[in-house]
Amino acid sequence: MKRIAILGSTGSIGRSSLKVIEAHPEAYQVKALAAGKNMDLLAEQVRKFKPLEAAVFGHEEAESLKKRLDGGVKTRVVSGTEGLIHLATLEEADTVISAITGAAGLVPTYAAIKAGKNIALANKETMVMAGPLVIEQVKRRGVVLLPVDSEHSAILQCLQGHARDDVRRVILTASGGPFRDFSREEMEKVTPEQALKHPNWNMGPKITVDSATLMNKGLELIEAKWLFGLDIHQIHILIHPQSVIHSMVEYKDGSIIAQMGIPDMITPISYALSYPRHVNTTLPALDLERVGTLGFMKPDTKKFRCLDLALKAAETGGSMPAVLNGANEVAVELFLQGRIGFLQIPSLIEKTMKAHTPFVIDSLEKVMEADAWARQRTAAFAETDRGSHRG
Amino acid sequence: MKRIAILGSTGSIGRSSLKVIEAHPEAYQVKALAAGKNMDLLAEQVRKFKPLEAAVFGHEEAESLKKRLDGGVKTRVVSGTEGLIHLATLEEADTVISAITGAAGLVPTYAAIKAGKNIALANKETMVMAGPLVIEQVKRRGVVLLPVDSEHSAILQCLQGHARDDVRRVILTASGGPFRDFSREEMEKVTPEQALKHPNWNMGPKITVDSATLMNKGLELIEAKWLFGLDIHQIHILIHPQSVIHSMVEYKDGSIIAQMGIPDMITPISYALSYPRHVNTTLPALDLERVGTLGFMKPDTKKFRCLDLALKAAETGGSMPAVLNGANEVAVELFLQGRIGFLQIPSLIEKTMKAHTPFVIDSLEKVMEADAWARQRTAAFAETDRGSHRG
Repeated sequence: MKRIAILGSTGSIGRSSLKVIEAHPEAYQVKALAAGKNMDLLAEQVRKFKPLEAAVFGHEEAESLKKRLDGGVKTRVVSGTEGLIHLATLEEADTVISAITGAAGLVPTYAAIKAGKNIALANKETMVMAGPLVIEQVKRRGVVLLPVDSEHSAILQCLQGHARDDVRRVILTASGGPFRDFSREEMEKVTPEQALKHPNWNMGPKITVDSATLMNKGLELIEAKWLFGLDIHQIHILIHPQSVIHSMVEYKDGSIIAQMGIPDMITPISYALSYPRHVNTTLPALDLERVGTLGFMKPDTKKFRCLDLALKAAETGGSMPAVLNGANEVAVELFLQGRIGFLQIPSLIEKTMKAHTPFVIDSLEKVMEADAWARQRTAAFAETDRGSHRG
Repeated sequence: MKRIAILGSTGSIGRSSLKVIEAHPEAYQVKALAAGKNMDLLAEQVRKFKPLEAAVFGHEEAESLKKRLDGGVKTRVVSGTEGLIHLATLEEADTVISAITGAAGLVPTYAAIKAGKNIALANKETMVMAGPLVIEQVKRRGVVLLPVDSEHSAILQCLQGHARDDVRRVILTASGGPFRDFSREEMEKVTPEQALKHPNWNMGPKITVDSATLMNKGLELIEAKWLFGLDIHQIHILIHPQSVIHSMVEYKDGSIIAQMGIPDMITPISYALSYPRHVNTTLPALDLERVGTLGFMKPDTKKFRCLDLALKAAETGGSMPAVLNGANEVAVELFLQGRIGFLQIPSLIEKTMKAHTPFVIDSLEKVMEADAWARQRTAAFAETDRGSHRG
């Protein structure tokens, strides 16, 4: 029986995780749920799964949640970073599903690892921002850390039963997003509404924009490096519009092992929880006869500049990946607010990276420092740009 | 160091095996070579690899080989079924590559298994004709038996590191052969020259015709059943014209693991010899960007009747798969000689199967009895057909 805490239970991954858990009551039990904003849904989840503890970030939300629960359950409600950390390190849980989007997920996830919890990791920022620190703690605590996004789950599955030394390269697939075939001119005019329509996956707004800029793939590149101990140049990105092959591993004899499935997070979540076993899900099987064809092409890094920025950040190392990530979060937010154009996202990130003098990451504080610096700097660059546009 | 005997060293698989062995002199050593007709090539191979023993089937060929070698090497030349068995069970070898085409490969392969040799199996007839007997011996002798054809090697690779109990189904891919898009009328007029042009693979004539009728896939279906202990209905056939995905395994959570590579036997041979490791080969990497698209479709079992005949033979069991195989060998030979039409291949097999009363296979003699019966019967049916055509 796995006793599970979910960080980010009302988001897309959190909700799918609860479906997997619900389908296997003999194997999984919910011990704690944490969420950000959606108190209606969190209250519903708490009433249904009766966790020991529920955490929300804001104190106002905590009050609002308590009111909704109205003493009907015994669940303890906590709040703030402290509350999140308490929940992530809860003695009664052994496994933490880390599914809070963005940099906010890093602190509780890191705390959970230090407390020896096994981790099902959907929050890629944990690895992007603090890869070396996280891997060190994972090794020190003997923690099992498994990816729950489809690409890294695919890579993990393709590595099973084959020797790590025999890996030649990892091929990370990317749908190419909704603007794959757009010209540069068309991309300049892209609106948030357009960017929020992903062709294959149904996800939250931040990650959907990241998929449109291909920054999502850039972040996954860095995550893959740390998760699987790869040289960054061993990881290749391949555009595959149908998102049927979730990623591949090529071995020294030319053999490529690929993992496929329908684009639904249920599969990677289920695999991370039942690893190394595959358990029944209610998903329909992938019907390749109906899919008909799978296509592959090179990514256009001239049009999708975020890919090269991520590669550069990984090569530089130290604080640079955290700066890349922080700058991207701010730029995407500004884009979603209609305050900058789509192509300004990579430009702002690039400016911020150029302005940064990288330093060694030897503590979470250093990571947060790089993140804060990048956020402030990107916002300032955006202001200047707007000023100069106005002037 | 693996000490290797090759049954069928001058054929396509044999020659590729020698390339793999040659590239890794630190890992493999040739101890014995057996071939059928090509004495020039066998002599060349013997001079190069200096095996302890060389076997040929015919006594005439043995004399011809001895003359060619002219005392220049210490290799002992043996002949006949006895010679082949001697070579297959040679004390100085620990691994036998079984690559003699057709039913002729069964006897020495079975002898090798009984002598406790590990087997790299390219001869599918061994499993098709005598599956239950072979598996029993493999278990009893603790022999490692690994497939060296691309599809079963793919399945083996896709099963590594995943629990057998978690397999939902195996998806065996088929190129569909050169007549995939032919009408029934066009298929009736197919000539041996047309049938011998395979779109993706360069192989011997018998297996190339089997690929054109899809009997090759039918035989692989039966082989997969025995190799991997599957229910025949767990194995699905999928047409995939590019032959890039060599086969797949679908697990209970909907996850599909696939193995891909360029269509070259070097990869499965190399994997069978280095299992479970992947070692360097000189093959170029599969370039999916250049391949561009992969297609999938249902097989048309109305046009390619051999598929259903193989399924039926597997369902019936006992002597029926050996009858299927024997009838097919005769029919293909008659087709290659221009004595029957392409669509008569399945008709003759079907007639022979209908005329057969299946019996239990509890010895190699019983298998050979079923084989001989089928051959004689198919030849007789072909004669009758020709008589009635003439009349």
